[in-house]
Amino acid sequence: MSVTVVGSIALDTVETPSGKTEEELGGAATYFALAASNYTRVHLVGVVGEDFPLGHVDLFKAKGIILDGLETVPGKTFRWAGKYHQDMNERDTLDTQLNVFEQFHPKLPEAAREAKFLFLGNIHPSLQLEVLEQTQAQFVALDTMNLWIHTAREDLDRAMRRVDAILINDAEVKDLTGEPNLVKGARAVAQLGPRIVIAKKGEHGCLLFEDEQFFATPAMPLENLVDPTGAGDTFGGGLMGYIAYKDATDPATLRQAIVHGTIIASFACQAFGPARLAQITMNDILQRYDAFRQLVTF
Amino acid sequence: MSVTVVGSIALDTVETPSGKTEEELGGAATYFALAASNYTRVHLVGVVGEDFPLGHVDLFKAKGIILDGLETVPGKTFRWAGKYHQDMNERDTLDTQLNVFEQFHPKLPEAAREAKFLFLGNIHPSLQLEVLEQTQAQFVALDTMNLWIHTAREDLDRAMRRVDAILINDAEVKDLTGEPNLVKGARAVAQLGPRIVIAKKGEHGCLLFEDEQFFATPAMPLENLVDPTGAGDTFGGGLMGYIAYKDATDPATLRQAIVHGTIIASFACQAFGPARLAQITMNDILQRYDAFRQLVTF
Repeated sequence: MSVTVVGSIALDTVETPSGKTEEELGGAATYFALAASNYTRVHLVGVVGEDFPLGHVDLFKAKGIILDGLETVPGKTFRWAGKYHQDMNERDTLDTQLNVFEQFHPKLPEAAREAKFLFLGNIHPSLQLEVLEQTQAQFVALDTMNLWIHTAREDLDRAMRRVDAILINDAEVKDLTGEPNLVKGARAVAQLGPRIVIAKKGEHGCLLFEDEQFFATPAMPLENLVDPTGAGDTFGGGLMGYIAYKDATDPATLRQAIVHGTIIASFACQAFGPARLAQITMNDILQRYDAFRQLVTF
Repeated sequence: MSVTVVGSIALDTVETPSGKTEEELGGAATYFALAASNYTRVHLVGVVGEDFPLGHVDLFKAKGIILDGLETVPGKTFRWAGKYHQDMNERDTLDTQLNVFEQFHPKLPEAAREAKFLFLGNIHPSLQLEVLEQTQAQFVALDTMNLWIHTAREDLDRAMRRVDAILINDAEVKDLTGEPNLVKGARAVAQLGPRIVIAKKGEHGCLLFEDEQFFATPAMPLENLVDPTGAGDTFGGGLMGYIAYKDATDPATLRQAIVHGTIIASFACQAFGPARLAQITMNDILQRYDAFRQLVTF
């Protein structure tokens, strides 16, 4: 089985209480693809400029990520800069340069269209709709953000009605539904279309709502939190990678997939950019899976 | 086995997005005792004024709570008033009238001294030290708050060095240790004395640190959150009640105790004051325990 991801590939400049990194490999699709590649075949669909370092392409290749859908076009790669607060749950965006991303219209190569699993990374909902026109996926998950909730609600509503699952953080649940209670909010999101609602709470873990059932899990407690950038996308990559590997989306598999997402996201936070994520092996993942089970068992 | 609790007994005026209640039975020791009484014999040590409604005393008696340590003195009962925000994780204290509580010095009756388990509710650390002089308890847990961290740190440090466990919320961990990372913070709190650190995160659950091991658990997702007042004390009552009932404080028992605390706290939030908490039976608790296991199993 394989998974297709469509989303941003960026060069990130990030400052956290642990230090600073400049023009590091970033973007939602990057983190997703690196995470998912531990479990399954990944088709990466996105765009970069001519300035995109070849070393990053080599990293994708080393991870076995299929790059037929990665366009290189004249101009500069998407750039993002942000600074995290002492409390790393809070961050400020300092700069966003869309560059080549501004004119991006996703074009899925044949194999990417045929992938059974599709992840619509956090891009404009109108682009997510364009992807939905091209895919033959049997299970689609969507990510979004406050900006689209406020500026592109109609397109977002149309996209949500056509997906199986939504990954959304707790603040976005409130923005989308007006409901401050996350439990009621998750239920309200499901009314908008996605049968499966996965509400991400950062360091507080995750709440899954599916068919009137909830699943709750804490995050992996981390003492060496270096850079949380991309943790949510890494979570999504672990989750979708795992269900693609299992070729199943039943409730039990979904719960295990959420734990895999949780675990792999914890690696992503332990270094700047995807440095740690790029290094891990399945052995690292399974070791931490055991530690996680130990953490939550009663 | 039995547990002694020392703390406030209050009349609370509370407003939440769900409504308002006036001069409702409240106070840390109240919630703790009502919760713990489901599991074990409870000695309640505190003070009320002559205006304290007899009906509340009857409720304590109906729950089998031992009231030899409950003083009634001339004057008015401690009163607290607060208002919760739309996001019920936030609240403002509108009024605090210490009244008879101002001159309170806990006096433990013989049976309360001999109880094997002791909970030092959130009172001035100098009073917690007075209680420690009187007790023969073999396992002592302490609660505290930001006010004492900032105004009575020396007494608090002395008290912390003499207890086995501390119950503390995430913001207080940061206040106490200066550490914004809760995982590091919990470890730092343990350096101050308590071997067992139980960091409460409200709707996000709880993190236990003991002997280099962590245990993490989410809270029970609640759609009908009415009034979170007393949830933390109820959590403490369920936790201490359970270990007293089991007469054990080994790591496995402690984890189960935290789940019991989590569950019983969820009942407390489902009505104003201790109304729901006062009604529940062990059958209700065990039913929700099963639902909780269902919630977190993967």
